[in-house]
Amino acid sequence: MTAPRTSGVREFDYDRTVALSDGVFAIALTLLVLNIGVPQLSGGAEARLWPALAAGGGELLSYALSFAVIALLWTRHHAFFREVRRIDGRLLGLNLLYLGLVAFVPFPTRLLGLYGDRPEPVVVYAVTIALVGVVAGAMRLHARGAGLLEGEIDRDPMWRLASVPLIFLVSIPIAFLSPTTAELSWLSLGAVERFARRLPR
Amino acid sequence: MTAPRTSGVREFDYDRTVALSDGVFAIALTLLVLNIGVPQLSGGAEARLWPALAAGGGELLSYALSFAVIALLWTRHHAFFREVRRIDGRLLGLNLLYLGLVAFVPFPTRLLGLYGDRPEPVVVYAVTIALVGVVAGAMRLHARGAGLLEGEIDRDPMWRLASVPLIFLVSIPIAFLSPTTAELSWLSLGAVERFARRLPR
Amino acid sequence: MTAPRTSGVREFDYDRTVALSDGVFAIALTLLVLNIGVPQLSGGAEARLWPALAAGGGELLSYALSFAVIALLWTRHHAFFREVRRIDGRLLGLNLLYLGLVAFVPFPTRLLGLYGDRPEPVVVYAVTIALVGVVAGAMRLHARGAGLLEGEIDRDPMWRLASVPLIFLVSIPIAFLSPTTAELSWLSLGAVERFARRLPR
Amino acid sequence: MTAPRTSGVREFDYDRTVALSDGVFAIALTLLVLNIGVPQLSGGAEARLWPALAAGGGELLSYALSFAVIALLWTRHHAFFREVRRIDGRLLGLNLLYLGLVAFVPFPTRLLGLYGDRPEPVVVYAVTIALVGVVAGAMRLHARGAGLLEGEIDRDPMWRLASVPLIFLVSIPIAFLSPTTAELSWLSLGAVERFARRLPR
Repeated sequence: MTAPRTSGVREFDYDRTVALSDGVFAIALTLLVLNIGVPQLSGGAEARLWPALAAGGGELLSYALSFAVIALLWTRHHAFFREVRRIDGRLLGLNLLYLGLVAFVPFPTRLLGLYGDRPEPVVVYAVTIALVGVVAGAMRLHARGAGLLEGEIDRDPMWRLASVPLIFLVSIPIAFLSPTTAELSWLSLGAVERFARRLPR
Repeated sequence: MTAPRTSGVREFDYDRTVALSDGVFAIALTLLVLNIGVPQLSGGAEARLWPALAAGGGELLSYALSFAVIALLWTRHHAFFREVRRIDGRLLGLNLLYLGLVAFVPFPTRLLGLYGDRPEPVVVYAVTIALVGVVAGAMRLHARGAGLLEGEIDRDPMWRLASVPLIFLVSIPIAFLSPTTAELSWLSLGAVERFARRLPR
Repeated sequence: MTAPRTSGVREFDYDRTVALSDGVFAIALTLLVLNIGVPQLSGGAEARLWPALAAGGGELLSYALSFAVIALLWTRHHAFFREVRRIDGRLLGLNLLYLGLVAFVPFPTRLLGLYGDRPEPVVVYAVTIALVGVVAGAMRLHARGAGLLEGEIDRDPMWRLASVPLIFLVSIPIAFLSPTTAELSWLSLGAVERFARRLPR
Repeated sequence: MTAPRTSGVREFDYDRTVALSDGVFAIALTLLVLNIGVPQLSGGAEARLWPALAAGGGELLSYALSFAVIALLWTRHHAFFREVRRIDGRLLGLNLLYLGLVAFVPFPTRLLGLYGDRPEPVVVYAVTIALVGVVAGAMRLHARGAGLLEGEIDRDPMWRLASVPLIFLVSIPIAFLSPTTAELSWLSLGAVERFARRLPR
């Protein structure tokens, strides 16, 4: 499955790039669980575990949110790389920057799980995901411009790609008014995805 | 090994889906060890390590249990995906939900290792594994219905697939009477597996 | 690279088994670094970091030891699986048990790094690695007996395979007299390997 | 993609060696995020999160630095292994030593994030990366000498390969005068890379 070598441009191995990317996605997905704190009971046998577990509900929600977000990013990364025929140095560099942002997501997830009722974690989270979206867009634009795609087409329309940075950027000012409203606004991403899937290709 | 593309339905890459799944399984299996706490000796050189290690025996047992459970889930996931010929958007989504539950297992494992003599961790653990079983069942039903399987057959009989959610759901009421009995009831899964392997195919 | 299917015996996918195994090895190797504690300086700017780092030297040594041990195990696992032509249910089960022990190694490593001057961690470590060796031996014996190997031969002689459990088992009584001597005795494994490589095949 | 077997020298599987290497790289990259500490607010609702986050800025910088360093190492490892035609026992051993050093990078990263204004972490970090560069050089020299490369050539010139150990070794004495200057001197690696890419091949 190695892409054929053409002369002039230094190329990189398709299989190993995809393998490293899948590894980073899989580990980022699986490390999220370490963010869920286990309650430390101090009151002896009569202490109740259910209220302590319920108090950690924000961490469970941030786990579910980040798992869904990283899974969605993986789905798109994978759809994009199916179209890629050749990897040049710049696409490799952009992909590594993209993976550095994906691997960073567990940190804002932890912030959100602990302090989800404050604006700061919502802003840090939204900026991180918006940056991921911007780098993903740069990868696509470069791949199109440099003729790295198969058949020079990319099946995802631009408005769909722009939805991730837009939705997260718009949520930043909302976060200062109401952190919870900002977090709920992220669910509109699901509606966009659902709508995009119904469109004819 | 890429599945052939057919027109009309958006398809996903078989190899990358399986690679991501194997990555999540491998990491979930290996992260379990982080749940085993190392005793902190405070009494100086005369303090004994054996009793401190023995006090952490529950964590060792929960490690062994979860390793066996995730390994069994991997075996079935792998048997199922061998039959899959084509991956559509819904199967991809169900598989990501499934992986989100598998990646979550280290959390109830940690609870069980620390508070295995209480009903709450047993209930959280049983609900998690039962949900994994339900999503696995949904994947199979969808794959059959949408004609994604090779030869339209699935070699595992339904009663075998239903054994995981059933055994774990039945253990939930037992956990409120006796957490240890509920945990021991999970061992019946091994007997079901052993019985299923002896049947002629 | 999928092994051809033969009738009658349930078989498992070679590629995914090897991928899961490599994943567990890679993660176990990389998680070891989490066992090295970072010194917490409390004395302000005048506090020295070198003595605090030197005090953690045992953790560095246990990192190097376990990395070498797991890397050696991977080399042998890989040499063995190159000969495997077919994977049956029992070999799959033994391999999962083997991986469960490999994934467990970070725990005795942490014990050894913290309490390497006591016999208990040395015993726990030696028992773990000896068990790995025993399960590896069982895998080979089963694969030979069940005709799962290519050309029915296995290139590693039995005395070489037995060296891992033997050296670690012998070190257990030594640990009660002198933990350091027991740890040093493990280095003889390197000499065995070096000797085995010089023999004509 | 398995390299063809030739007689006389024991060989190792190319695919599994590369898969293990990619696994270790992906995990080392992704574990870095665990080094970023989440602020613990103690002052109640009026406590501010921004200053606490800003105080952890050194950890963010060390995350970005180590992600870039490991990503650069992966790019070179990958460029080197594309030229490798055959893996002998010594190359396998050197590669495992190399991976042991790459997997170790999260530890000096954590030191640097916590105590980046002191010389000690800078020295530990520089020594680690310089050692990685030395082992990488040994791998290349051995592969050339033993005829393991395709076409007996290696596309990266020696001065480019020597840049990693040189830049990090030179920064060690600087660290005792000014840790920050030493850290900034590492950025010259980016300039070397940029210059090397512009040269005709």
